[in-house]
Amino acid sequence: MKHLLSTLDLSRADAIRILDIAEEMAAVGHREVKKLPALRGRTVVNLFFEDSTRTRISFEAAAKRLSADVINFAAKGSSVSKGESLKDTAQTLEAIGADAVVIRHWASGAPARLAATDWIDAPVINAGDGTHEHPTQALLDAFTLRTHWAKVRGIQSSGTDLTGMRVSIVGDILHSRVARSNLWLLRTLGAEVTMVAPPTLLPVGSGSWPCKISYDLDATLAAGTDAVMMLRVQGERMHAAFFPNAREYSRRWGFDDARLATLDAADSAATIIMHPGPMNRGLEISSGAADSPRSTVLAQVSNGVAVRMAVLYLLLSGDQQRPAGN
Amino acid sequence: MKHLLSTLDLSRADAIRILDIAEEMAAVGHREVKKLPALRGRTVVNLFFEDSTRTRISFEAAAKRLSADVINFAAKGSSVSKGESLKDTAQTLEAIGADAVVIRHWASGAPARLAATDWIDAPVINAGDGTHEHPTQALLDAFTLRTHWAKVRGIQSSGTDLTGMRVSIVGDILHSRVARSNLWLLRTLGAEVTMVAPPTLLPVGSGSWPCKISYDLDATLAAGTDAVMMLRVQGERMHAAFFPNAREYSRRWGFDDARLATLDAADSAATIIMHPGPMNRGLEISSGAADSPRSTVLAQVSNGVAVRMAVLYLLLSGDQQRPAGN
Amino acid sequence: MKHLLSTLDLSRADAIRILDIAEEMAAVGHREVKKLPALRGRTVVNLFFEDSTRTRISFEAAAKRLSADVINFAAKGSSVSKGESLKDTAQTLEAIGADAVVIRHWASGAPARLAATDWIDAPVINAGDGTHEHPTQALLDAFTLRTHWAKVRGIQSSGTDLTGMRVSIVGDILHSRVARSNLWLLRTLGAEVTMVAPPTLLPVGSGSWPCKISYDLDATLAAGTDAVMMLRVQGERMHAAFFPNAREYSRRWGFDDARLATLDAADSAATIIMHPGPMNRGLEISSGAADSPRSTVLAQVSNGVAVRMAVLYLLLSGDQQRPAGN
Repeated sequence: MKHLLSTLDLSRADAIRILDIAEEMAAVGHREVKKLPALRGRTVVNLFFEDSTRTRISFEAAAKRLSADVINFAAKGSSVSKGESLKDTAQTLEAIGADAVVIRHWASGAPARLAATDWIDAPVINAGDGTHEHPTQALLDAFTLRTHWAKVRGIQSSGTDLTGMRVSIVGDILHSRVARSNLWLLRTLGAEVTMVAPPTLLPVGSGSWPCKISYDLDATLAAGTDAVMMLRVQGERMHAAFFPNAREYSRRWGFDDARLATLDAADSAATIIMHPGPMNRGLEISSGAADSPRSTVLAQVSNGVAVRMAVLYLLLSGDQQRPAGN
Repeated sequence: MKHLLSTLDLSRADAIRILDIAEEMAAVGHREVKKLPALRGRTVVNLFFEDSTRTRISFEAAAKRLSADVINFAAKGSSVSKGESLKDTAQTLEAIGADAVVIRHWASGAPARLAATDWIDAPVINAGDGTHEHPTQALLDAFTLRTHWAKVRGIQSSGTDLTGMRVSIVGDILHSRVARSNLWLLRTLGAEVTMVAPPTLLPVGSGSWPCKISYDLDATLAAGTDAVMMLRVQGERMHAAFFPNAREYSRRWGFDDARLATLDAADSAATIIMHPGPMNRGLEISSGAADSPRSTVLAQVSNGVAVRMAVLYLLLSGDQQRPAGN
Repeated sequence: MKHLLSTLDLSRADAIRILDIAEEMAAVGHREVKKLPALRGRTVVNLFFEDSTRTRISFEAAAKRLSADVINFAAKGSSVSKGESLKDTAQTLEAIGADAVVIRHWASGAPARLAATDWIDAPVINAGDGTHEHPTQALLDAFTLRTHWAKVRGIQSSGTDLTGMRVSIVGDILHSRVARSNLWLLRTLGAEVTMVAPPTLLPVGSGSWPCKISYDLDATLAAGTDAVMMLRVQGERMHAAFFPNAREYSRRWGFDDARLATLDAADSAATIIMHPGPMNRGLEISSGAADSPRSTVLAQVSNGVAVRMAVLYLLLSGDQQRPAGN
């Protein structure tokens, strides 16, 4: 594994290896534990062509906890906006000393383009590209799901996958790179995925995806699910002319207090509620649900640092114990 | 002491403890002295909802001199501006690994709201909130005053307070969090405070404050004072329809060369001139005064780093020798 | 040498000393080599009054590779934009603990003004001022040229200068601080310089500069040159009313594929093509030229970090082995 661009081409062995290392990393940074020296002297560049403070900070914290130096490069206002090509930008960063490039780009496919060429030798990590993929988000979700799934079954999580777990992904599938990256990875790890969305927020071709499609959140919940992943709604898309509008969306596809009560009444103790953040409380998720014991929202954030540490470690440390198959 | 939110609830013992530790910290970072390892592996997040480069840089320098990692989070352009709540932002930062949150907010009371709830466990440090408080500014001013007051009396400053010292705070009291934070702390430390301002720039209720009120800077200077603290004037408030306008303000409440000459002629060697910066030279302070030997403007900046080191150290180091009374 | 403000007043001994130390620094940061502890505990402030992500990142990487702490201060949106003077800003930064100030300013002469006064004690490094100078760019270009010139002659570069080397600087000389800084340094190091430009892009007074002036790139190339330095064109200056317009400029003063072919056919193996970046591919340089084996574009970027490490080391380390003559 030289880059991390997509979960579509991530093998089961690679994915499990990343999750296992992330489990070890999760212990670092806790109050009593010092940072690891693993990447001392290495430089990680965060090359962000669009704002994403959360993702940038998570990678920054992960790199620093491994003792790497971090350079933040917001492409806005830089020579990039003066017309410099992605190629020249990337080669410049490598010449300056970047040992890894974490790239966020508004254009789907930009990270893959950077990695597929011989432009640079440094590993490329996709931190979200257009509506395409967000692989570290999928990995942190998988980490969160695996922890829960192992607990439900009373086993240790290390080395295991998600075989038999039922995961529902709910909301704006059409525009969501999170949904795409999760689907590929969850399938690789053996989970059964249901996409729940209004028909207008499903992409053309989703009928052939390796998952069930549902337009009815309540039916999906009633049928039983081990995790419900609520996607963030882009408020700007919920304008008046659009169906569903915000109120309709919230009523039919939001995880509200009524649905939480139904779940609690059914004693589905094993069902967790996930959200990649930032949440629109009251729109796709109610405050009651977001703050309930079922919510894994903050665990996901925390797991995100551990997963990113694992990815940086695997791609940069020169550890011979690399994931198999690459 | 778990947080630093206000000087109003800071005990005399806590305040003196912070100043004493700051004296030790002031020795670090000098040309020959290396940084301290005290906060190695800890992460300090600067969460700034409004621009304040000086304050942000001062906290950043303080944290780095203690070997902490620093993550800067400018809330503009982040998910916060997309409607994420302060609660979710703070919890996210803690989940990412923040060991302390330094918060600057345009809303008075935001840091206290963050700390008073059980939203996060990490210490919260108020770096200025609305027109409410700016406690580290008050502490650095107290540090500067104490150094001077001890020198005047020919004693060591460590362990002492400001009993008997006369401090005049001059200018836009109405909008100044610096004035408020200073008043509470200076009273706790035993100083006698006089607020000098145009009537239009005094808040309702200031008549019941534990200080003297004066509209006449020259009378206050003639009566004798050990320190004159000039507040920054917000230029945008000095518009034409306002009394006093800039020229009038400068003439009556600015520390100009004439007042400096009067002070020098009276041989009031012990009177220092303070300013929190950035200065409007020629408005609330003349260049002659700002650059005179009486000016402590740069000492205040330098003391700011030492005081912030002390606060971070006390709140984060796990040192058992915590300030008494909390 | 206390500051680095200009190449005009840089002695030959100082220049060679910087280049020699940069050669040692170039070994650091390579995959197997750890960072140097030389500037541990020192703080370098990047004080940027205009955007220049490349230069800022290069200084940041250089400082971190020497284990210094780096504080980035973008003057936009800071108290500077509220009218604070350069003097107050610089003194504040020093009071906060800056051991060196790297300054980029839109005003020609701002760094020299800062250094020529007694405002601050910290070394000032000019990272580009108006249309005046950009000395570290000239030094990295000289480093690149020297490496090449030594290779051509089959000697070691350390300790040598550029005597006998022919360097052509091509393009918008009028607005280019790079051209100015390079001319002074190249002359000091013994190179023969030719400036090639449209008459409208040559400054008044350039006739008295210690170099040849040419309006004809092809003639200059035909006469033989060891290095061609293509300057970046400011696209916004190439408007319709201007001569030459972009197409005309590219045809007559751009390094295009035809000129590359001519050079290759003449077997001028020893001629390198330089560009300070970011490149306008297709305007002042073709992609064929930029990516050819003759291109030193990426080597220049890499050498920039080494040269900046050398400058920071010399000005900050307290090493007694300072360049002679200062």
